[in-house]
Amino acid sequence: MAKLCLDSVRIVLVEPAGALNVGSIARIMKNMGLSQLVLVNPVCDPTSEEARRMAVHAGDVLAAAQIVESLPQALIGCHRAIATAVRQRSPDTPLEHPRTALPWLIEPGFTTALIFGSEDHGLSNEELQYAQRFVYIPSSDRYTSLNLAQAVAICCYELAQALPLQDSPPSLETTAPASLDALEGYYQQLEALLLEIGYLHPHTAFSRMEKLRRFFNRAQPSELEVAMLRGMVRQMEWAIEHPKKATQTE
Amino acid sequence: MAKLCLDSVRIVLVEPAGALNVGSIARIMKNMGLSQLVLVNPVCDPTSEEARRMAVHAGDVLAAAQIVESLPQALIGCHRAIATAVRQRSPDTPLEHPRTALPWLIEPGFTTALIFGSEDHGLSNEELQYAQRFVYIPSSDRYTSLNLAQAVAICCYELAQALPLQDSPPSLETTAPASLDALEGYYQQLEALLLEIGYLHPHTAFSRMEKLRRFFNRAQPSELEVAMLRGMVRQMEWAIEHPKKATQTE
Repeated sequence: MAKLCLDSVRIVLVEPAGALNVGSIARIMKNMGLSQLVLVNPVCDPTSEEARRMAVHAGDVLAAAQIVESLPQALIGCHRAIATAVRQRSPDTPLEHPRTALPWLIEPGFTTALIFGSEDHGLSNEELQYAQRFVYIPSSDRYTSLNLAQAVAICCYELAQALPLQDSPPSLETTAPASLDALEGYYQQLEALLLEIGYLHPHTAFSRMEKLRRFFNRAQPSELEVAMLRGMVRQMEWAIEHPKKATQTE
Repeated sequence: MAKLCLDSVRIVLVEPAGALNVGSIARIMKNMGLSQLVLVNPVCDPTSEEARRMAVHAGDVLAAAQIVESLPQALIGCHRAIATAVRQRSPDTPLEHPRTALPWLIEPGFTTALIFGSEDHGLSNEELQYAQRFVYIPSSDRYTSLNLAQAVAICCYELAQALPLQDSPPSLETTAPASLDALEGYYQQLEALLLEIGYLHPHTAFSRMEKLRRFFNRAQPSELEVAMLRGMVRQMEWAIEHPKKATQTE
């Protein structure tokens, strides 16, 4: 698949308190092709055993995390910043869907930041001021507050999906589809067998076969699959003609 | 915001080993409007303090989690199932992007399941057989393996984002889809017949049946179609036991 690269987007966590969260965040960042983690006054130890355990193979992202003392420091060199928010602050700062807003962070030539508040308090009004746009992850009325690492996971995923280089998942070549005449051969053979065993009767054969054809057509069988289906019919014909031998093959 | 309701989608975790993960999953499920959690042979205690701590206000989802002993049991009553996979199994089972495939689980009138494997092993080939479609969360070459709870978070988020689009008028005359257990009944019956007539042999039965299952799963048969397929198998069994009568019905 195409190489994802989101190295110009910083994930900024303000006062994160959970080492497990910080470790999980490092992991999902690396999964999604991000590498720049900035921690503003962390209240936990990002080098702790707990954090490293959750990071698994993203220990490098964790080890390279930059620790700073204020949000403006975390944003030095950035051209654009989006903050996550749980409620709208004013009529002129609409909350946007991640899918709508986050692609703005990956336009070429910009160094950008996505800012998350602490587990308990989110971002203060003062901190929100440093962002130009605001995203909100839609959630159920039953329970609106997401875990910090889960919120970061969803945003990193959206960032990665917005990359123009997105490829489809690794795929094998698809098998050759059956030719329509091979399929027709199967239907003829099946109909003859079904008449022979008394499942179809001449006066009902057409409408019943129509249903079967619709079903098999929908599956769009490959050449190999039609060969397999025809093999089954042949073996059934043989079994009916040689009932004793057939039952002895077990 | 609109009330999200995804109660007809089960999240099925096969042999989850991390109580923290199970707790986090309960939380993100509730955040995203899901409530049906099914654990197949959990290797951790979903009622443990660790799990409850991560669930925070989703203790109800955790407490209501159903524990079963096999994947088929987890799927009883389901019409559609999607499994998460990390690589393509064969040319005829493409891996799909969550955004493309998951809306299929929330079409009105269907009880559905989204299946995740264990943290260490993912899903076995046998377990993958029970799903009709397969999703893959695109990830960076640098680190492809996502934490289980993060993968579930991304999929639950995608399910929830697909909801508002579901307001299209209910389509007429779609036949009731077959339940996965009716389909399983057909496979068992077909396998027995194919062994009896010598089309399958005990040592090759599994891999050949896997191909057949994939083919029929892809066609997504309706209840009526499965009844028709089963009727054909029954009639063949009868024909083999009564060879003369059968050939006389023409």
